[in-house]
Amino acid sequence: MSNIVKERQNEWLPKIESELDRYTAGCGSMHPRLLEAMRYSLLDAGKRIRPILALEFCRASGGNPENAMPFACGVEMIHTYSLIHDDLPCMDDDELRRGKPSCHIQYGEDTALLAGDALQPLAFETMLSGSSIRPDLTVRAANTLAHACGAAGMVGGQVIDLENEGKHVGLDELRVMDSGKTGAIIKAACVMGVIAADGSDEMINIAEKYAENIGIAFQITDDILDVTSTAEVLGKPVESDIGNDKSTYVSLLGLDKAREEAARYTELAVDAVAPLGENAEFLKEFAKMLASRIK
Amino acid sequence: MSNIVKERQNEWLPKIESELDRYTAGCGSMHPRLLEAMRYSLLDAGKRIRPILALEFCRASGGNPENAMPFACGVEMIHTYSLIHDDLPCMDDDELRRGKPSCHIQYGEDTALLAGDALQPLAFETMLSGSSIRPDLTVRAANTLAHACGAAGMVGGQVIDLENEGKHVGLDELRVMDSGKTGAIIKAACVMGVIAADGSDEMINIAEKYAENIGIAFQITDDILDVTSTAEVLGKPVESDIGNDKSTYVSLLGLDKAREEAARYTELAVDAVAPLGENAEFLKEFAKMLASRIK
Repeated sequence: MSNIVKERQNEWLPKIESELDRYTAGCGSMHPRLLEAMRYSLLDAGKRIRPILALEFCRASGGNPENAMPFACGVEMIHTYSLIHDDLPCMDDDELRRGKPSCHIQYGEDTALLAGDALQPLAFETMLSGSSIRPDLTVRAANTLAHACGAAGMVGGQVIDLENEGKHVGLDELRVMDSGKTGAIIKAACVMGVIAADGSDEMINIAEKYAENIGIAFQITDDILDVTSTAEVLGKPVESDIGNDKSTYVSLLGLDKAREEAARYTELAVDAVAPLGENAEFLKEFAKMLASRIK
Repeated sequence: MSNIVKERQNEWLPKIESELDRYTAGCGSMHPRLLEAMRYSLLDAGKRIRPILALEFCRASGGNPENAMPFACGVEMIHTYSLIHDDLPCMDDDELRRGKPSCHIQYGEDTALLAGDALQPLAFETMLSGSSIRPDLTVRAANTLAHACGAAGMVGGQVIDLENEGKHVGLDELRVMDSGKTGAIIKAACVMGVIAADGSDEMINIAEKYAENIGIAFQITDDILDVTSTAEVLGKPVESDIGNDKSTYVSLLGLDKAREEAARYTELAVDAVAPLGENAEFLKEFAKMLASRIK
């Protein structure tokens, strides 16, 4: 991993953790068990990719990155609630998440549903009450995430995903689904960072282009990891996933072509931030690091 | 029903309906089925008590009530999502809502979960993008609802409700649970109306006091209706509910005393808005109307 990525991760990860801890601890939960379930899923978990993107796009736009912290925390809370609900029996029915029992296995289905339901407004409360930027920018940033995580973005993509189960879908449909399910809040994170710095429209465009490309690269990488890790764990040939119920970049393209595509989209993301000159160094290296997980 | 309540309902109900229709139709849903499920539960349903309170508190505070419309719609979207999730099999497992099949019966459990998950951010998007008041007031109003509908309010009360099932709880515990589960967003509706008018702190206090009292009166009335309507439907004595698994105002107080309490809290709500003089006329009559459902 490049030095700048390591450095910034070392800078941000403890701060993000401490802010997530502070916002949840101070949320005024009426019930300790609810708070415990929220914190169980939110804290000590995840790579904090979305928060780091918000903070670093604020910095790359010339702002004080700390100004993006409430938005960084907000997007991570939204991401976490979506994982909790995704794991529920009526959805993917997954019992493990990040190496520990899923929220509903640990706390029961009803409490897990409600922990997700409480993390969502906490994301908005965190952004609206924690923001120290101009109120009009606060409104704009929080609205960016609200739009991205709803029917026009994350939840919309999840519904398409449900519908695609057991169907063969093409590359275009896969990309539309992913642009909602995983892409929308990655983009919102980058854009909120720019807004927190009161960045230009040009900078918003750059953030959107970068985010779209790392979003696709990230999803292809995830599909590859899913297959290669299955191969390691189950000892079956990686290509066995092709033709399975769920269309993925790997099932549609094959492993080699998928690797090429992940590299290509990463390169497009790197190109997108090139106009920022040396301010883009972290963002370039971060995009490469995300894709390097499959090398 | 008093003339002023009828008049204002006639004024507001079509406007609220048309705004809810407009905001959902324009939400950019990635999938028609998701949008349909959201609209199925949101439109043509409910008495719109919370939106009317927001609009009328804005008017009573000297503001243009239309300025409160995005907040009125926001609180109704939050209320509706909570009903969809409440009805899910892992929660109350209710198959009927407002005389038609619950959202998950009509669209399946996964789509219903996601319709609720999409209505929640749409509430925030509606408030943040639809507001025409000062940005600092928009932030404050939307944050009021964010706080009220999460762990410190509505969802917190729902977790207490889950925990209380099958347990005998006292009047104080019941009141705490209700203050979260149903009281918090009723209060947020009233307070947001005041904020939309840039009302004074004194006016916020009046709104809170009014809301707390109609909230309790409303819950007692609901408990009474639950019993009396059961009596009509099942033909069993109304007192049969006393000693049941779930503690209610009726099971704790008996029907007569519960009726007295509903009347007493309604009177307290009426007293709370007395300082507003003739501006309070609608709010007084509305409180009485809500309680008159049991007469």
